[in-house]
Order: sequence, then C-alpha cells, then structure tokens
Amino acid sequence: MNRPRQPVIILAEPQLGENIGSTARAMLNFGLTELRIAAPRDGWPNPAAEPLAAGAFEAGVTVTAFDSVEDAVADLGFLVAATARPREMEKPVTNASGAIELLTAQTTQVGVVFGNEAQGLSNNHIALCDAIMTYPVNPGFASLNLAQAVIVFAAAWGDAQGREGRFEGKNAGVGDPASREELIGMFEHFEDELERAGYFHPPDKTPLMMRNLRTAFIRGQWTSQEVRTFRGTIKALALGRGKARIKRED
Amino acid sequence: MNRPRQPVIILAEPQLGENIGSTARAMLNFGLTELRIAAPRDGWPNPAAEPLAAGAFEAGVTVTAFDSVEDAVADLGFLVAATARPREMEKPVTNASGAIELLTAQTTQVGVVFGNEAQGLSNNHIALCDAIMTYPVNPGFASLNLAQAVIVFAAAWGDAQGREGRFEGKNAGVGDPASREELIGMFEHFEDELERAGYFHPPDKTPLMMRNLRTAFIRGQWTSQEVRTFRGTIKALALGRGKARIKRED
Repeated sequence: MNRPRQPVIILAEPQLGENIGSTARAMLNFGLTELRIAAPRDGWPNPAAEPLAAGAFEAGVTVTAFDSVEDAVADLGFLVAATARPREMEKPVTNASGAIELLTAQTTQVGVVFGNEAQGLSNNHIALCDAIMTYPVNPGFASLNLAQAVIVFAAAWGDAQGREGRFEGKNAGVGDPASREELIGMFEHFEDELERAGYFHPPDKTPLMMRNLRTAFIRGQWTSQEVRTFRGTIKALALGRGKARIKRED
Repeated sequence: MNRPRQPVIILAEPQLGENIGSTARAMLNFGLTELRIAAPRDGWPNPAAEPLAAGAFEAGVTVTAFDSVEDAVADLGFLVAATARPREMEKPVTNASGAIELLTAQTTQVGVVFGNEAQGLSNNHIALCDAIMTYPVNPGFASLNLAQAVIVFAAAWGDAQGREGRFEGKNAGVGDPASREELIGMFEHFEDELERAGYFHPPDKTPLMMRNLRTAFIRGQWTSQEVRTFRGTIKALALGRGKARIKRED
C-alpha cells in the first residue's frame, strides 16, 4: 500500500527561533520531515532553535528558508491554512482529521501553512490556500503556541498513517486469557478457603456472595498467569497465617 | 444531554515550571481546566510557569499540588496513563481518541496521567491506571515535550466534544465505581496480609509481583461494594484460619 506523500509544514513569518525548533521536534515526533520557513523575523539559521529541536534537525527534519510565503508554497499543489479564527472566505473549513483526508486525497505535493505568533495567518496568505483547518478551541482562550498548533496536526497525521494506534484491546503478548475452566478452578479454590475461614455468613447468603465475587473477578478478563498468581495468594493467606503464628510463638 | 465530565490532567513529578505553564495553556485552549501536579520537582507555585501559561491560570485553569501521584489520583474513578513506550502490562492500549471514548464512557471523575520530562511514567504509576494511551509516534524520535503530549490529548478531547452526545455511560446501575483511594487501600491491605503470610518471596521480586496483582485487579473496574467485599475476604482468610484451628482444637 502506498503511503501518501508527507505534507510540507510552512511557517509564515515566524518570530521566535525557539518555536521553529519546537515545531521541528513536534513534526518529527509524528514522522514529518519537511519544514519551510517564510521570511523568518530573525533570519535562518537561528541558534535559538537548536535546544528546543531536541535533535530533530540532526535526526531528519530539513528546514528551508524562503523570502516570502508565496515563494515557500510555489511548488505545492494543494494547501491547507491553519487558523483558529473563522474567516469570511468561501473555502472548505475542517478540523485536523478532515484536513488530512483532503491532503491525502491529492496527487500532488501538499502543505499546511501556519501563521506567526503575533497575528496568525493574514487573509492574503489564507487566500493562497485551498482549505482552512481550524481546531475546536475554547473561544475564550483560542491562541495556541505555534509548535502546539503544529503538533495537533502532526498527531492527527500520525493517527491517520498508523492505524495500529487504534484499539488493540490488551497489550499483546503478555499472556493468554484464562479459560473458563481455570477461572472456575480459581473460584472454587477461593470459595473453599473462604468457607473454611468462616467467611460465608449467614449461610443462606452464600450463593449471592459467591456470585458477586465471581462477577467482580470475571470482569477483569484475567490471564492464565494471573489466575495462577491469585491462587498463590489465596494459598499464602490460608496457610501463611499459621506460619506467622508459629513464628510468633517461637 | 449531559456533557461528559472533564478529565483531570495529572502531571507526575514534573520538573520544569515552564512545562507546567505550557500545559495549562494547552489545556485551556481546548477547554480543560483542572490540572494536578504530583510532587513537582521545584515546588508550587513556581514563577517559571507564569509566562508560558499565557494567562491560563487567570483565565480558569486551577492547579493543585500533591505530595505523590497516589494522592493526586485518590478520588478519581478511572485513569488513563499517557506513555510513548509499550509496557508489558495487561491493560487496554489505545490512542487519544480511543482514550476519550473510554473516558467519556465512565460515570465517575476521570483523569489522564502524564509522566515527567526525564523518564515518563514509571511502571508503578502506570499500574495504578486503567488504560494506556499511546500516540502513533515516530519510533526513532518518540519523545514529546510534556505540554505537547498534553495538547495532543486536549485537542482530541476538543474534537470529541464537538460531536454532541455520542457517548452513554456504560456502567450505569452496577454500583458506584471505586475511587482510586479505595483501590489503593484495598491493595495495601491485601499486600500487607500477603507480606505477613510470607507470600512475597524472593523479596527482590516484590515490586513486580505487587504491580502484576494491582494490574489484574484494576482491570476489573470494581465498584466500592466489590472493594469492600474483597477486603472482607482478605480479612477472613488472614484471620479465619486461626478460628478454624481453634474450632478444630475444641
């Protein structure tokens, strides 16, 4: 199966080198490697980016600086504009996973454009894009840190790529589920010892008490190993108390 | 239609105040407001948090500091552990949106626990949780900045809220889920009695044995009543054996 081409991440006129570094780290966390920066305020390269990149540049993120947003997107065939604010423009508006559906449907190289720390994207830059991506943010506190905005997209990209992240049920390989027979053996062992210890009282309540215990245990979907472990604890409690007493009597 | 209760965000032993501030900002961007910090390295309050919070504390995020992760989660009924690394534990493993399905299905207060900058979550802390959330990260560059990890979850939460009322509590009517405090009390009671009975042998395996037991029990999502019942059985096994002997000696 062909993987879709990775979207390019474009930062429009970013201000802080720190945010460029954090963006690179965020991208690489989810396997994105092509970063373009359009008219960075403090130029490029920028030593302030290094510490926050946490090694992302060495580990594979490439950064290319351009003089303008227009130059940075010139070779791209489909662009998504990331912006928290609704705009009066006739463009599709979607969230991160919707944007990824649009991006992966393209046959050309694609990109996502993020605005800068102070103003976000200008209307002129949004006008260059094919669709608008907006996150379901708190309207009273809508301003995301730049790299945070990038990682929300990158994580959705990772999700879409690696469906293996979906529900896997249990952690694989830790143990085989216990058979019903093993569970029943465990219950009978437990109940026998409880009976011997005088737990079931009054006797007419015994069936209900047993059923409630069994229900609680069944719900955990224990493995064979867990059943053996629990039987070990029952044995220890049933016998060990005697040992402890003997020791104390020594 | 009732909105699900917001998950509490718990940072386990966070190191940098800056990351606590960034986390608060990230949370509030998507409408989450309850932050708990367990044993923050540099104490709390921490002036380093303020600039990166970008006003989130004033705008509604509450931060409560606790001495330990156990204390921080004591009153919560269902917990998700955020970790990039797969663990050999029998717990459901899911991504952010899967975790949100699990969280919104609960009828109790819920939380998501994030590990610290240096080590992530310890196995002991993961053992306290009901499920593991892992993002589909780049295996060659898997370490997310702490606040970045939080915003990936928060954004997925925001996304899920946008879709009204999809989730119904599925545990309705079974009884109140046990709080984490009740479960921890039960574990300690059980482990104390096992210790007294000489169960933990050899001693260097004890933490692993305890963790495996806790994991098995947590998975059942027991009710408060079930916790009380099980504590009754422990007591009976620990003490009752003596009674039975006395009877036999009569």
